[in-house]
This record gives sequence, C-alpha cells and structure tokens, in this order.
Amino acid sequence: MDRVDILIKNGLIVTIDKDMQIIEDGAVAIKNGNIVDVGLTKEIDLKYNSDKTINASSKIVMPGLINAHTHSGMTYFRGLADDLPLDRWLNKYIWPTEAKFLSEEFIYNAVLHSAAEMVKNGIVLFNDMYFFGKQCGEAASRVGIRAIIGEVVLDSPVANCTNPEQIIDYSVNQHKEFEKDELIEYSIAPHSIYACCKETLQLSAETARNNNMLLHIHVSETKKEIEDCIKNNSKPPIEYLHDIGFLSEDVLSAHGIWVNENEMKLLREKNVSIAITTESDLKLASGFAPMKEYLENGVNVCLGTDGVASNNNLDILEEMDFTSKLQKAYNQDPTFLPAIDIVRMCTINSAKAFKKDSEIGSIEIGKKADIILINKSQLDTIPMYNVYSHLVYTISSYYVKDVIINGKIVMENRKLVNVDEAEIIDRANYYKKKIINGL
Amino acid sequence: MDRVDILIKNGLIVTIDKDMQIIEDGAVAIKNGNIVDVGLTKEIDLKYNSDKTINASSKIVMPGLINAHTHSGMTYFRGLADDLPLDRWLNKYIWPTEAKFLSEEFIYNAVLHSAAEMVKNGIVLFNDMYFFGKQCGEAASRVGIRAIIGEVVLDSPVANCTNPEQIIDYSVNQHKEFEKDELIEYSIAPHSIYACCKETLQLSAETARNNNMLLHIHVSETKKEIEDCIKNNSKPPIEYLHDIGFLSEDVLSAHGIWVNENEMKLLREKNVSIAITTESDLKLASGFAPMKEYLENGVNVCLGTDGVASNNNLDILEEMDFTSKLQKAYNQDPTFLPAIDIVRMCTINSAKAFKKDSEIGSIEIGKKADIILINKSQLDTIPMYNVYSHLVYTISSYYVKDVIINGKIVMENRKLVNVDEAEIIDRANYYKKKIINGL
Repeated sequence: MDRVDILIKNGLIVTIDKDMQIIEDGAVAIKNGNIVDVGLTKEIDLKYNSDKTINASSKIVMPGLINAHTHSGMTYFRGLADDLPLDRWLNKYIWPTEAKFLSEEFIYNAVLHSAAEMVKNGIVLFNDMYFFGKQCGEAASRVGIRAIIGEVVLDSPVANCTNPEQIIDYSVNQHKEFEKDELIEYSIAPHSIYACCKETLQLSAETARNNNMLLHIHVSETKKEIEDCIKNNSKPPIEYLHDIGFLSEDVLSAHGIWVNENEMKLLREKNVSIAITTESDLKLASGFAPMKEYLENGVNVCLGTDGVASNNNLDILEEMDFTSKLQKAYNQDPTFLPAIDIVRMCTINSAKAFKKDSEIGSIEIGKKADIILINKSQLDTIPMYNVYSHLVYTISSYYVKDVIINGKIVMENRKLVNVDEAEIIDRANYYKKKIINGL
Repeated sequence: MDRVDILIKNGLIVTIDKDMQIIEDGAVAIKNGNIVDVGLTKEIDLKYNSDKTINASSKIVMPGLINAHTHSGMTYFRGLADDLPLDRWLNKYIWPTEAKFLSEEFIYNAVLHSAAEMVKNGIVLFNDMYFFGKQCGEAASRVGIRAIIGEVVLDSPVANCTNPEQIIDYSVNQHKEFEKDELIEYSIAPHSIYACCKETLQLSAETARNNNMLLHIHVSETKKEIEDCIKNNSKPPIEYLHDIGFLSEDVLSAHGIWVNENEMKLLREKNVSIAITTESDLKLASGFAPMKEYLENGVNVCLGTDGVASNNNLDILEEMDFTSKLQKAYNQDPTFLPAIDIVRMCTINSAKAFKKDSEIGSIEIGKKADIILINKSQLDTIPMYNVYSHLVYTISSYYVKDVIINGKIVMENRKLVNVDEAEIIDRANYYKKKIINGL
C-alpha cells in the first residue's frame, strides 16, 4: 500500500472535471500537495494508507471556491457606512478613513482577518486589489490561503507610492519576492479607466506581459463611468481598453455591468474574464450585470464578493445564491443560470481566469489539493435531491467544515489551523475603536 | 426584590419600540410569559432576581422575527426540482408528489421539521398556507412556535376536503379547537383569484369576519395572473378583490408583484398588508416587487420566505438581505430601503399585519416575551458600527443563539428544547427515500 499525506473517505465527491463526474461514497488521496488518486472509497482504501484520514460521510467534497474580486484590506470598514449614495460613501467615509488609518500594520491585520474569514467560507483563492500588497501577501500566506494581490495603480499618489510607475515597479518586485511562495502571486492592478490615464494603463499592460503577471481592473461598474468615457474618448470603456491595447487573456475585469454587444465580442475575442459582483452591485445600486449576454457571447464569467464595505461579507456561497436568483428574474426565465453553471463559475471558470485551470478548480489526479468539505445533513439542509442546487440555494457557509489548500489542512472542523481567531477578533475591536474615535 | 422567570442581562437591546430605542448593556425581565421590565442591566439587577439568567454579553437582544408567508408542510420537497419553468415545476414535480404523499402523518412530520428550522433562524411566528392544518397546528405547538395556519381553500377537492365550504368549515372548527393554545390560530386561506371563484372568495371573507379570523391569499404573483384576470373580469386582481368586497384590514396578501397605482391606493384604503417574498419571486422569475410604490402609498409591508420548494430555506434574515439589496438596484438608489426599515418589516410591521402589534413585535413592558438573542461578535461579523445594518447585511441565521417565545425558552445556545433534532433529520431521510422511489 502507498503511504499518502491525507486520505478523505466516504464523501460525496463533486469533481467539477470535464464530465462533471459525481462520486458517491468516494475518496481522495493527497500527497506532497497534490491529488494522487480519486475514486470509490472501497477501491482507494485498498491502495493507500495515511496517518491523517478525514471521514467525509454526510459531507460534500468539492474543489475550493474562488473569490475573483475583493479588497481584503477593508475588513475594519465592514458596515461603517451603509445605505448612502456612492459619492457620500466614498468622500465622507471610505476615503477619509483610508487616508487616516491605512498603514502596513493595519493592512496586515485586516488581511489576516479577511483571509481567515474567507477560509471559513470555503474560499481557497482570492483575487485582491488594495494597498500595501507586501503585508497583504504576508498575511494571506500566514493564514494559508492562495492570493493574487494587486497594488492599486492610480495616477494620484497612494498609500506607499507617489506615482503610477512606482506602484507598477513595486508590484513587479513583490511578484519576484514571493516567487518561492506557492500560495502568493502579484498582479498589476490599474484601478479603472477613470483613475488611470492612457499611459498608465498601457504601462500596466506592457509590464504585466513582460513579467508574466495578471492584470486586474474595475470596468464599467456605473452608468456614469460609461457616460464620462464616451464624453472623453468617444467610446465606452471596453472599446477604449481594446483600442489602447490593454485587453488580453491576462485581464480580469471586475463588475462589468454596463457593457454593449460589441464590447462583449471584444471580451470574447481577447479571452478577457469577467468577475460579477452581484451583492455589491445591488447594494450600491450600480445595476444588473448582463449575465445572459456574457454567456451567449462565450465570455468566461467568475463571481466575486467585492470588499466588505459594500457587501458586507466575504461569502461566495451567498454570492452564488444571489446571482442565480437575481438573473432568473432579471431575464424573466426560471430555467436560466441553473445551479450547476454557478458552481462552475466559482471553481473551474475562475481557475481558468487566473490561468490556473491545469492546477486547481477541480478534483482530478495531478492537480493541487485545494479541497473543501461541506456538511450536507443538518436540519436546515435536508433533504438533498441535487447537490448543485443544494450548494447554490440551500447550503450556507457555516456548513463548510474543513478546508485543504495546496495539500495542507487550513481549517479542520471549523477551527483555523494557522491563526488564532480570538486574537483576530480582539484586533478588530481595537481598530474599530480607533476608527470611531478618528471619524 | 421581585422574582421573575427569566432575566436577560448585559445585552444590546434593540427594542423596536416607537422611538426605536437601543439600550446598551441592557436587560429584560420576563414573568408569566410577559415582558415585565426593560432597562439598563445595572438598574434591572437591583430590582429582580431569577433562577434563570441568560448572559447576553456580545449579543443582540431583539424581538423575534416573523415569517409573513410560507408553506411549512413542504419541507421534504426542498430542492426537489429547481431551475424549471413554473408549469413544469408544478405539473411534473410538486403537484404529483403532493397528490401521492400528503397525509396527516407526512404533514405533522414536515411541519415539525420546518417549525424547528424556523426557530433556529430566529423566527417566532409564521403565517402558513397548506394542507392538513390540524396536524400543522399540533406540530407547531409542540416545537413551541407561534403560527397562523391557513388550510388552502380551492374550488377543486383537496387533501382532506371535497369542496370549499368544507374547507372553510374545517378552518373555523380548527380555530375554535385551538382557542386555548396561546401559540396557534387559524386563518381562512383562499389560494388565489384563479383557484377560487367569486362565491368562494366572498364566503371566505364573510366567514373570516364572522369568526374574527384573518384572511390569507396569494395575489398578483405573475404577469399571467394579471392578464388572465383582466381577460376574465375586465380588471386586475386587487381591483377585482376590492369590488367583490374581499379587502379589509384582516387580509394578508402574499407576493403582490404586479400591482398598479390604483390598486396600491385600494390596499392602503382598506389597510391590507402585503408579504413580499423576494427570494422565491426571483427564483421563479416572477418579477420585482414594487416596494417603493407600496411605501409611498403607505401600505404595510412584511417579508416572507415562501415555501422551501421555491427558496430553498426558511431564513428570514437572508430574505431581509436579498430584499434590501435588490430594491436598491431596482430603484437605482443606494439610499432606498435602509436596514432599519427592513428590520421593522420583519418585526413590528408583521405584528401589525396579524393584529398582534399590541402583543408582540417589540421589546416593551406588557408585551409577550418573544425575544431572540444573536451573537454579534464572531470573526465574520465584526466590527459592527450599526446594529440594523449588521442584522440585514452581515449577520447570518446561524448566529441566532437563543429563542424565547411566549416567555418560554424554545432554543438555548442553538439546542432546541422541545424536539429532538436527530429524530427530525432521520425522518426527513426516510421521506426523501419514499419520494425518490415514488417519482
């Protein structure tokens, strides 16, 4: 018998492989961070032994969820200012508070918190855009979660840099510095077409390509953004980005609410992926994403939570529920966006967006072991007739019990392995007091 | 010092009284089912003692939530058939399965399950419409939750009755039989204008008024219902109900999606309450409720989960989150429907709809003690800046820790007091197998 690091047994394995195979009473063998075997428990049991066996009976075993767009350093702004118009929200609350409080220490602690929160919600990878990327990477790495970290590129001075060139250099340096950390990488993250001039956007794209980095940008989030862009550039944002040579398969665009038919075709042609952020878009009244048009045009769609200041959590299972239900009503079709498609968006589609679909996003031999176990048999989650419907419409994140990332157990029976929850909670209360006193 | 039955101390008391008073480090004293005092812990502590003290530090203490529209007997159909067109969903799955399986025993067990589930979600009262009302009442009473139970009145024969007169008689008899049960009452519940003829609707209304019972009906849920009603009666549903004398302050209308300006005025004039069921309406692609118009016209609005076959849970906190966010985007206004208004809808507004606002819906001296305690200080729920925003956008139902109904503890630290969860789960698995084999 072969010795492996972890054996998961007796679970309902939702593989998300190309045949969307489901294995009842299945098992997964993990060694050196990789999935070395998947199959029926009774067969796997004869082939392997392990010091660490996880009994997954009454659990769903599936690839970890991916949060395709967030701002993980905003933890302490959760619920700071709700039910406000966007400009007042930004000008009176978010920006002044950021200007006053953001620091290396603040971000390290805030990301420690949000990364821990994401693991508890079954998330194994988050795509981030915020400040102090070095500290963000250190915190994510400590929690044990994968992260693609974008330091916000702006034409105006930011937290730790005075101009966009500096921010782009910083991002490249971080990317190199974390080269040996299997969990962390950096992107180039120009904020948006309205916060970055043409030269900044082009420098971002060029630098990303030269260094084999991803690009992360907010696109077409509000109607005003479109109107301003047409006024300034005689074309809407995605056409503009196309014309200046920004679009490529390395780009992840967040939001993408106000997008026309021609722009859809450009996104498809250039293999750009879109992160839909339904809850945040609803709460800020930004609009309804044209999901049907994206899918009809073959655009790769993922889901993101956005930051907790506009959501107010980092719960991708809840995002799945919101997105599927909203899109049915918005398209006047209850058959639109079935649960199985939504589950793919938060696993294999997202992995594809980040050029990691050969490594993660499904449970298949040879892939990295990014696996979550979800309790499916509690009072409020039975009966279950269809596992995808169950995941999208019934299960809540509390029922995520165990999280394995890169072959390491990061949460076991809801207890985080690498960080102390009580300490994180204490620190949140400390920063909350500081923020209230400073407002 | 006065002796009381239960003392809740050290909590953040969200009273929902007319001044929306919030008491930090507050306490509530409960005796003989009633709230006998509310105030600062340090003051209440000097006046009362009790054998049962609940420490509410780090908890929100608020009036129990009210689920204004559901079908509690559908538990075992949770997720049976999703992502389908309404007619196929009804004709191929829901109706045949109901016809085959509904029985007194089935309903008793299903409601035991859903009532337990609702308590775990912080719900203290549900307004129901389904079959076998006697068994529904017995199950709700055993769990210890309040219920207003409507036996569906249809022109066609139903489960246990062959004509509408019989169903209406049955409802009145049940109402009398449960007169001494403080938790349970019965309504008259004609299904809808399309499933009941004019005479049935009028008999329902007349009988309800003669017996001091509430009326519960589905109204204006789909576009087709409106079109058919205009074709058959030359007017839309609410105008039709008004003209046949059905509308009064005793009526709770569920859904109410397709309602015109004149109908809004009729609802206000007759003091009819509306139960909005956002998640179900989205999932079945029925449409977006005209919340803004209801509020502008002064209509009393509550929220309901609908049944688990179309939601797929009984989570009113989630319903609050969906409703507030959706309505902001739908009305293109992030300031619309602030969290505080949503919290009122699921407490005092609902109590008003059921003519119980002098008894429940807020934490005030003299009211019945229907109180829930919610943990507010977990990793994914801190920091908290505003308690209403916290309840709507951040808190999930898992954090409801204790539930008191009519002065009795029904759930303590998430353990149900009156029923055995493991038995309920076993029974759900038993019925699931039966349903799968029978389909």
